[in-house]
Amino acid sequence: MSSPKLFAVIAGVGEGTGAALARRFAKAYPVVLLARKESSFKSLVDEIQASGQTALGISTDVSQGDSVKSAFEQVKKTFGSDVSCAAAVFNASGAFSRKPFLELTEDDFTRPYSVSGIGAFHFSQAVLPLLLKHADPTHLPPTLIFTGATASLKASVGFSGFAAAKFSQRALAQALAREFGPQGVHVSHVVIDGLIDTPGTAGWMQDAGPNGKLQPPAIAEFYWGLHAQPLSTFTFETEIRPFKEKW
Amino acid sequence: MSSPKLFAVIAGVGEGTGAALARRFAKAYPVVLLARKESSFKSLVDEIQASGQTALGISTDVSQGDSVKSAFEQVKKTFGSDVSCAAAVFNASGAFSRKPFLELTEDDFTRPYSVSGIGAFHFSQAVLPLLLKHADPTHLPPTLIFTGATASLKASVGFSGFAAAKFSQRALAQALAREFGPQGVHVSHVVIDGLIDTPGTAGWMQDAGPNGKLQPPAIAEFYWGLHAQPLSTFTFETEIRPFKEKW
Amino acid sequence: MSSPKLFAVIAGVGEGTGAALARRFAKAYPVVLLARKESSFKSLVDEIQASGQTALGISTDVSQGDSVKSAFEQVKKTFGSDVSCAAAVFNASGAFSRKPFLELTEDDFTRPYSVSGIGAFHFSQAVLPLLLKHADPTHLPPTLIFTGATASLKASVGFSGFAAAKFSQRALAQALAREFGPQGVHVSHVVIDGLIDTPGTAGWMQDAGPNGKLQPPAIAEFYWGLHAQPLSTFTFETEIRPFKEKW
Amino acid sequence: MSSPKLFAVIAGVGEGTGAALARRFAKAYPVVLLARKESSFKSLVDEIQASGQTALGISTDVSQGDSVKSAFEQVKKTFGSDVSCAAAVFNASGAFSRKPFLELTEDDFTRPYSVSGIGAFHFSQAVLPLLLKHADPTHLPPTLIFTGATASLKASVGFSGFAAAKFSQRALAQALAREFGPQGVHVSHVVIDGLIDTPGTAGWMQDAGPNGKLQPPAIAEFYWGLHAQPLSTFTFETEIRPFKEKW
Repeated sequence: MSSPKLFAVIAGVGEGTGAALARRFAKAYPVVLLARKESSFKSLVDEIQASGQTALGISTDVSQGDSVKSAFEQVKKTFGSDVSCAAAVFNASGAFSRKPFLELTEDDFTRPYSVSGIGAFHFSQAVLPLLLKHADPTHLPPTLIFTGATASLKASVGFSGFAAAKFSQRALAQALAREFGPQGVHVSHVVIDGLIDTPGTAGWMQDAGPNGKLQPPAIAEFYWGLHAQPLSTFTFETEIRPFKEKW
Repeated sequence: MSSPKLFAVIAGVGEGTGAALARRFAKAYPVVLLARKESSFKSLVDEIQASGQTALGISTDVSQGDSVKSAFEQVKKTFGSDVSCAAAVFNASGAFSRKPFLELTEDDFTRPYSVSGIGAFHFSQAVLPLLLKHADPTHLPPTLIFTGATASLKASVGFSGFAAAKFSQRALAQALAREFGPQGVHVSHVVIDGLIDTPGTAGWMQDAGPNGKLQPPAIAEFYWGLHAQPLSTFTFETEIRPFKEKW
Repeated sequence: MSSPKLFAVIAGVGEGTGAALARRFAKAYPVVLLARKESSFKSLVDEIQASGQTALGISTDVSQGDSVKSAFEQVKKTFGSDVSCAAAVFNASGAFSRKPFLELTEDDFTRPYSVSGIGAFHFSQAVLPLLLKHADPTHLPPTLIFTGATASLKASVGFSGFAAAKFSQRALAQALAREFGPQGVHVSHVVIDGLIDTPGTAGWMQDAGPNGKLQPPAIAEFYWGLHAQPLSTFTFETEIRPFKEKW
Repeated sequence: MSSPKLFAVIAGVGEGTGAALARRFAKAYPVVLLARKESSFKSLVDEIQASGQTALGISTDVSQGDSVKSAFEQVKKTFGSDVSCAAAVFNASGAFSRKPFLELTEDDFTRPYSVSGIGAFHFSQAVLPLLLKHADPTHLPPTLIFTGATASLKASVGFSGFAAAKFSQRALAQALAREFGPQGVHVSHVVIDGLIDTPGTAGWMQDAGPNGKLQPPAIAEFYWGLHAQPLSTFTFETEIRPFKEKW
């Protein structure tokens, strides 16, 4: 593999938004795909490589600091230690259960935070030095985007653990935007307010029509648009939803 | 003039954002430019025409229903009564004074509302039927964008009248997004949270550096990106600010 | 009538919240009741007087500066020109129609603003000098409270005019809180998020049960609690809703 | 000790808000005081007992489920297993460091969450069954109040871990309010937006004047007012700040 000086990295690559982000950013940069299970990125890496672009998949548990560190060491080994990061997306999210509050175990409550809180923390610490390295006025500003959800802004019944996790991730994103924005790194938080159209959600809202669910390629294009914003015009927060969504 | 079937319209064309929006949307559609004074759009119309695109300037006082109606009659006369609207931007804003509250006259307080409230109402009523006409899944969704400000979300000392007006415009935008979104019209509200780099602001924040103020062409490109969002992925609200801005 | 040095004033006295506020504040201060129609306050003034407290009703159109000025001249004539204001509540709200947006007239859209925007402006200008006069650390801080609604924070379909008006009133309240708070006047904004139990709403939500609607005396007690907050502990904004309300 | 059927409980009792809350709620109920270190509540328990009211201090680490369970077992042993809870306040907050983000350890980041997230979870799970038991229309509604901070709504530079924790606690409070409100339990979240006047903050903002910092007894009185709200008129969220505070 050659030694590109830039890369993009997507944490949380599954069949929906993460895969679409990988395909979109691969058009511009070698992409690093992080997911816990190799099966989440294997065929996607093959697909991107087959189209002549560069992709590197690394099994990573973002909730574990050592796992994240090891992933970024592998990135440097692969692309060269002088590599810097053009764009990073934290798209990982933990599973959660919607039980009545009094039936939740501590693990039910904290599991989402271990990804959206702790995982986002480790990913940010690993990638920010590589984004700062690339803060250079002749390029697109280096970008760190977090994927939020309806539950980043509103905690509904049954969502205490998930919303606690997503609220905490939004706080982290805000603090980072305020600390690293003036240093030239664009930190952004996208609230996805609707159902994403993936194989996993095929059975839900079946009468929603083709545009009643968020289409992953459209989400990915939107994230690219955020990455393309110049220093004079940064968006921190935005929400995206299907045109028919109630809000 | 030929009879294009689509047009874009910008209300509130001056030397900054409005002019940049006109130039950007003129690349794709004939543009109609509305401003109270002909001097605000005259040279811009000439510039756009000279580059081989179509622009029509109409002196309009958006706070007056008759003036807005007459402007849209002129649009139909020029482009044909079967014309429909691809994109509309309400970028007008009234002057306001930052006097202590107890020194404000009723006129000081209500003047901003006459543009941001009443003007936005008239503009929306005139343009929405032409946007609805164009709600067609084979094109970019017709789009209505309102330009907000820091004062759309926060009312500081000295801003009671301006913020009251901008808050009211945001309410209108929200209600329209909820009513017309499901009908295929994308209504969006952009909070501009910083100083825009125009000849008029040249004397302010002189040490801000080239990217310390919002650059109008970057704002316009961002608005275009909102227009380009497909039905599955609409943004209602977003804010844009320079990377160094405190918030 | 004797010459008390303090008074409270309620703008927008009808059969619900306004009347309850009048009864509550009359326990502590002579109360001035403003409403457009004498019939809105006549029997209430009698009731308060009959219980040995002081009430003065003045027919006032808050949307008209002259009408508000004249009301406060009558207050000074009645209580003495050295009177100052302990508490003022702006509880007026204009009627509005929930028609589809394209069927609204300009008057439909602006009528709510003429009360919630312009009326709140005139009331604030008239009462703030009398509140400032009373900013004295040995008393409860003088207080100006605005009654908001769900539509102060969210503009739903059919509410463009009402929400535009209520958003604008909230902006005014914020700007005043920031300007006059440091001068010792407590400005507060209460979002009433639910149906108020009044004769006029008796036919709505009939299965809500006794506590499914907001009870005016409880609202009034809450406003009194805001008035009782000391300088060290001011609340600007709060919302109140019945325990069963969806939000 | 006699067997009262009701009690109030304050988690997080130190020299400021917690102690004032204990004194205020002790006027109406036997109070249970939880803090990690006995020294945080010992003299306060003595003081309350000396004034003829009932107080029980229990060393508790709210971040540990077993510790919280054991505390509530002791409550039942002391007051009888048929005791129910009238009011519970979660006032605990973890220490945090304001280092630059890239210098934070995982422990720095997660420590505040172990109290504001996990601790609030354990406390809520232990106390809600005892609050539900008391949901009885003839009494004040049972109440669960969380103490928030400026960082519950805004994450500033240096506050990533603290704000992540406080945002998560706010999410938990929201989800609980929506689940348990309709069951008659009043869940509320108070944003304390300013410096609290305690021995520990005596050296900060020394020129703030007597009302430039939040006075703990006034905070406690405000919490009591929330507890006193009837079912028809619940406040979920409010903020309190000194009159001179910038916001």
